[in-house]
Amino acid sequence: MPNISQRGIDMPASPIRKLAPFAVAAKQKGIKVYHLNIGQPDIATPQEGLDALKTIDRKVLEYSPSQGYQSYLDKLVDYYARYDIKLTADNIIVTCGGSEALQFAFMACFNPGDELIVPEPVYANYMGFACEMGVKVRTITTKIENGFALPSIEEFERLINERTRAIMICNPNNPTGTLYTSEELMQLRDLVKKHDLYLISDEVYREFRYSDKPYLSALHLEGIEDNAIVIDSVSKRYSECGIRIGAFITRNEKLRGIVMKFAQARLSPPLLGQVVAEASLAAPQAYHQGVYDEYIARRNCLVEGLNKIPGVFSPMPTGAFYTMVRLPIEDSDDFCRWCLEEFSYEGETVMMAPATGFYATAGAGKNEVRMAYVLKIEDLKRALIVLEKALEAYKAR
Amino acid sequence: MPNISQRGIDMPASPIRKLAPFAVAAKQKGIKVYHLNIGQPDIATPQEGLDALKTIDRKVLEYSPSQGYQSYLDKLVDYYARYDIKLTADNIIVTCGGSEALQFAFMACFNPGDELIVPEPVYANYMGFACEMGVKVRTITTKIENGFALPSIEEFERLINERTRAIMICNPNNPTGTLYTSEELMQLRDLVKKHDLYLISDEVYREFRYSDKPYLSALHLEGIEDNAIVIDSVSKRYSECGIRIGAFITRNEKLRGIVMKFAQARLSPPLLGQVVAEASLAAPQAYHQGVYDEYIARRNCLVEGLNKIPGVFSPMPTGAFYTMVRLPIEDSDDFCRWCLEEFSYEGETVMMAPATGFYATAGAGKNEVRMAYVLKIEDLKRALIVLEKALEAYKAR
Repeated sequence: MPNISQRGIDMPASPIRKLAPFAVAAKQKGIKVYHLNIGQPDIATPQEGLDALKTIDRKVLEYSPSQGYQSYLDKLVDYYARYDIKLTADNIIVTCGGSEALQFAFMACFNPGDELIVPEPVYANYMGFACEMGVKVRTITTKIENGFALPSIEEFERLINERTRAIMICNPNNPTGTLYTSEELMQLRDLVKKHDLYLISDEVYREFRYSDKPYLSALHLEGIEDNAIVIDSVSKRYSECGIRIGAFITRNEKLRGIVMKFAQARLSPPLLGQVVAEASLAAPQAYHQGVYDEYIARRNCLVEGLNKIPGVFSPMPTGAFYTMVRLPIEDSDDFCRWCLEEFSYEGETVMMAPATGFYATAGAGKNEVRMAYVLKIEDLKRALIVLEKALEAYKAR
Repeated sequence: MPNISQRGIDMPASPIRKLAPFAVAAKQKGIKVYHLNIGQPDIATPQEGLDALKTIDRKVLEYSPSQGYQSYLDKLVDYYARYDIKLTADNIIVTCGGSEALQFAFMACFNPGDELIVPEPVYANYMGFACEMGVKVRTITTKIENGFALPSIEEFERLINERTRAIMICNPNNPTGTLYTSEELMQLRDLVKKHDLYLISDEVYREFRYSDKPYLSALHLEGIEDNAIVIDSVSKRYSECGIRIGAFITRNEKLRGIVMKFAQARLSPPLLGQVVAEASLAAPQAYHQGVYDEYIARRNCLVEGLNKIPGVFSPMPTGAFYTMVRLPIEDSDDFCRWCLEEFSYEGETVMMAPATGFYATAGAGKNEVRMAYVLKIEDLKRALIVLEKALEAYKAR
């Protein structure tokens, strides 16, 4: 058998999927599983997007332009303008989900062996894409005690060396639910400017900010126009993860030209997804308000409920729809597996993502899990009861 | 401004796109351009696929499984069985077009610096993906005189060294229109078996074979089950390039496991495209027969017409919908540009792809162009007249 590449061998498996067989087995035993582990929203896609599918009047489902349809790009410019982000259509390249935008960023910014600094806990697939492109990831640990605020700039600076090419953030953050403050972002701006690094900002949870403070995108930061790269996606914004439409955004013309070569090699982003995404931009304010209110209610229900369970702590997330939770246990990998394999309460159990998969630092996050509040309130309430019973039973084993 | 990666700088620009601005300018002058340069079929997508869009009854356009929908995978197994290719659903991973399948293959099989052997002229985007993944491409030149038949196995063997990991073919071939014979494929089988290399076979033009000989896929070759990788796509088969649905296929379980990690990192292939592709599998035989008859007629019209023009030679393609054409000129890059920028005949001109972009060997293909017969017969006839006039005028400059 021919050799497998080293990057193939090194490629991390998804930390969430390790538990999937246990969930399947639990369901086969007739146990109801509350999925707190995944970021697949149950929120409806905007009707405007769904309706657009019915009215597609094409005889040939042909290639779309490599950059994306001009009509969609033009409407995206208007979308960003709503956030006072001033772009031209040429600053935007439509991608196959945020995933491809990340791959483009990594391919364009890093030689194999170059280094990326990213706060941990970190969205696990960043590590996967880094592995694919030979990027060395240096993590800087943030702490649950202070809501995963960014460490001091000195701590970032300590990791910078001649191979460092970029600092990456996810804002609002998956997996922590943290929305970074303007002070934190201004510090990052000064840092990337000083060392002439890229600032790669994954902003796919832009709509999910639970704060009255003014919104700051990486694209708002003045003086780093050539450094800022934004990764975007309609997946969470419109609850249409499956259509695979994202965007790579930069005002750096040279970088944009390079990424267009990558975009042309793969020919085009999904046509049908673009049709849905373009139509979804017309979703009324009532849609967004409804989604927002629902997430606020779910967040409050889950996090307040968690903090009432003895020994459990979760900071109140300020963005996205995840929260990191410290549990009175020693090994969250074992606990999460045990909940699926050995436990049930009144025929039900919970599935959570062990936090170890979100830390590169060995041993970090051993008593933490990530929960997504993408379930209905009544299910969240029930999941909280089941979790409390699970913790009691686990302790009493 | 931060540095761009070396692979970004080295990434080849699409050879066809270089001419795009000249085509735009010609059209602005009111000149009608016959596009012989691209592989975007004008053939209608099967009605079954188009209808499937109207009947999607989902409230949430959610992630599909990373491997693809089970129902689609199961139907693909039946599709391959029609060609006597025996697969299980687990041998297939649904991808975002053939492009992503190629990226997966390159990521999984090659370390940076490893070598790939591929016959040239070659589909230009192979070079792009190789650049992205740090793969060194060694080309073996095939000749228009003998219809781009594969050179002797000794010539392949001469290029094999300790860094060689794979031989790649496109069968039927883009850009040459060559369908490889069973003798050629059996020789390749023996070679990859002897040196334990991967055989990566791009078979996206499977339906477009103009030969009575029995069909041989790389998946038919016995004794190299762990070596064979097939790249597939519905783009050309059902004229639905825009839906971005392809497949990575291997019976090598270890390799399959590695590629699944890449697939999971990018979360899922396009949902809507899978719905259309699955429905398109039900297209009746009459659809395929109609498409086939149309391409045969176009091929005959174009190639017979080309060979009647003084000094022009094209072999008769046995597959796909391209042909390579030798012209009585010295510099096809200049001629193709000139046709768009300086020539018109009765308000019309032709756009062709200069062959130099399909050769890695410097200077090769200088008097060749690639033409795609994706235009209606009447347009092909007219394009032939315009081309003959262009050659006369170019010579008389």
